[in-house]
Amino acid sequence: MNFSSKLLEDAVAEFAKLPGVGQKTALRLVLHLLNQDKEDVEKFSHTISKLRNEIQFCRICMNISDHPVCQICASPRRDHSLICVVEDTRDVMAIENTNQYNGVYHVLGGLISPMDGIGPSDLEVDSLVERLKDGDTKEVIFALSATMEGDTTIFYLDKRLKSFDITVSTIARGIAFGGEIEYVDEITLGRSIATRVPYVNSLAK
Amino acid sequence: MNFSSKLLEDAVAEFAKLPGVGQKTALRLVLHLLNQDKEDVEKFSHTISKLRNEIQFCRICMNISDHPVCQICASPRRDHSLICVVEDTRDVMAIENTNQYNGVYHVLGGLISPMDGIGPSDLEVDSLVERLKDGDTKEVIFALSATMEGDTTIFYLDKRLKSFDITVSTIARGIAFGGEIEYVDEITLGRSIATRVPYVNSLAK
Repeated sequence: MNFSSKLLEDAVAEFAKLPGVGQKTALRLVLHLLNQDKEDVEKFSHTISKLRNEIQFCRICMNISDHPVCQICASPRRDHSLICVVEDTRDVMAIENTNQYNGVYHVLGGLISPMDGIGPSDLEVDSLVERLKDGDTKEVIFALSATMEGDTTIFYLDKRLKSFDITVSTIARGIAFGGEIEYVDEITLGRSIATRVPYVNSLAK
Repeated sequence: MNFSSKLLEDAVAEFAKLPGVGQKTALRLVLHLLNQDKEDVEKFSHTISKLRNEIQFCRICMNISDHPVCQICASPRRDHSLICVVEDTRDVMAIENTNQYNGVYHVLGGLISPMDGIGPSDLEVDSLVERLKDGDTKEVIFALSATMEGDTTIFYLDKRLKSFDITVSTIARGIAFGGEIEYVDEITLGRSIATRVPYVNSLAK
């Protein structure tokens, strides 16, 4: 693209570095910002800069936090003997939204992915192992994506956790609620038959 | 969404103000920035702030520019008696990319849209009229979107330009190159028959 201004070109180039944002979208976003008040754009710019410079990570679970220890890890009402291992903060938010989990978390900060050059040392694996050494943990739940990377990470972590006397589990995989059998992929359907569970009539209580 | 950090929440809120960016996309973009080096994020933030504070508009054609007069308006090789009226800088870029136009531009900065509360006084209409007063302009071409707003704007501008002794034209409308007749909407097809042009065999030259 031929820009009429270097400033414009630079701003478009910065936006186009964001994931899923191409040149045309970047230009649209930049022109939108140009139409806003100077104070609003200054606030946008300042908020991002402040985020990156002041963000902290909970020193226990490694989740994004405004304090050295996050609200979840600091809460006496949570079950601290139950650790749910997740990829990033989005997964913590998703699980918290279910209101079905009362334990604590451990945020790995990614998944093992040799293709992308991400190994165990790039993730918060050592800090997880360190956490388990005090012996207060009863169970570790892996809530990782059902992908090659997720499975690889679970395989690796399971080996690392073998020496501890704790229960290791993964979240259930199967057909999603509302899912129609004919549209489910073969692997999921096959496994959900193999790992079938006793029927519980939840209406008969 | 329940964020684990106020800084994170603020940054997501700022990104979610951008057009076409929802909460989930905003969170993805913010987490991407958190994974980047501090210097890169600082550069991103600084570039945007600088753009908004230092951007200039060409005082002749009102296009975005780094100088008081843009490169196109300052060029002696362009035909300054031909003014193409466009909505914004994206349209200038699109027309420049065709390499088919050698005149100059006038950027309105929007289209008349009563629904959005945008009237002629919000656009660069007076500056266009002022430009025509020196009598050097032979033709004004309207290259505005074929929408209700575009048509309204052309209707209004045509009335404003009546008093000048200049040719007023609009870019041709019809079936796009590569367009198949059966998929063209009725209005475009009907008009393209009514405004048919003599056949020119471009291969017979």
